[in-house]
Amino acid sequence: MDCIFCSIINKDEHEGMIFRDDKIVSFLDIRPLSYGHTLVVPVAHYTDFREMPADLMADYFAQLQKIALAVERATEAHGFNIICNTGIAASQSVFHLHYHIIPRYHDDEVFKRLNFKKYDHSITMHSYAEKIKKQLF
Amino acid sequence: MDCIFCSIINKDEHEGMIFRDDKIVSFLDIRPLSYGHTLVVPVAHYTDFREMPADLMADYFAQLQKIALAVERATEAHGFNIICNTGIAASQSVFHLHYHIIPRYHDDEVFKRLNFKKYDHSITMHSYAEKIKKQLF
Repeated sequence: MDCIFCSIINKDEHEGMIFRDDKIVSFLDIRPLSYGHTLVVPVAHYTDFREMPADLMADYFAQLQKIALAVERATEAHGFNIICNTGIAASQSVFHLHYHIIPRYHDDEVFKRLNFKKYDHSITMHSYAEKIKKQLF
Repeated sequence: MDCIFCSIINKDEHEGMIFRDDKIVSFLDIRPLSYGHTLVVPVAHYTDFREMPADLMADYFAQLQKIALAVERATEAHGFNIICNTGIAASQSVFHLHYHIIPRYHDDEVFKRLNFKKYDHSITMHSYAEKIKKQLF
């Protein structure tokens, strides 16, 4: 078993284990962006969100919401980010689908210095919308 | 109508409009972290992910996945982040539920300088897992 999350799921010995049923497991990230930073992971191995089967979504995201609300209350956070990194370029580091729940506080500076881009006359929003629409159907 | 997303949904004149059906609308973020940065928005007004009704989830996240794959192909990205900011402290700026799709490229430095925390003997992972489990049921 080369997948660290499959190992955690099969062993069930993670110090930060929060929840498990037959489809979904949840445990704390060992490299937290804030205390209580939680992962929600399907038991079945899918590499990333691109591969997530549609019939898992209703259960998975309902659990993600429930767990996020529990994390927020438990950490007395002021809000939270839900994040799913898809691909190495997007900072995915374990290639078993997972969503992050990151408790946030006013002025905590977890994500600082974001580099925003701008659309302009040479790079128009419309041209990007058209490109994406072409790929959608 | 004070909600900017409700205005966009009702007017249907957004330059970056990508998709709409009776439940879900998708358009480009006017303040993109990368070109093609896309929002997926339920037509019905919910303030944030905390309020999302379970019966919307299957359709919404299946569309989110389809649109993300279209965005990735259209932008020739190497991956993407799915992000839902919940609350002002988490950088939510429009209080109508939406998920972000952010195309990513190797070494693009969209998110740099992340401030990771560490669990230690005084702040244990186990204590956080227990706090969250208490709030879950």
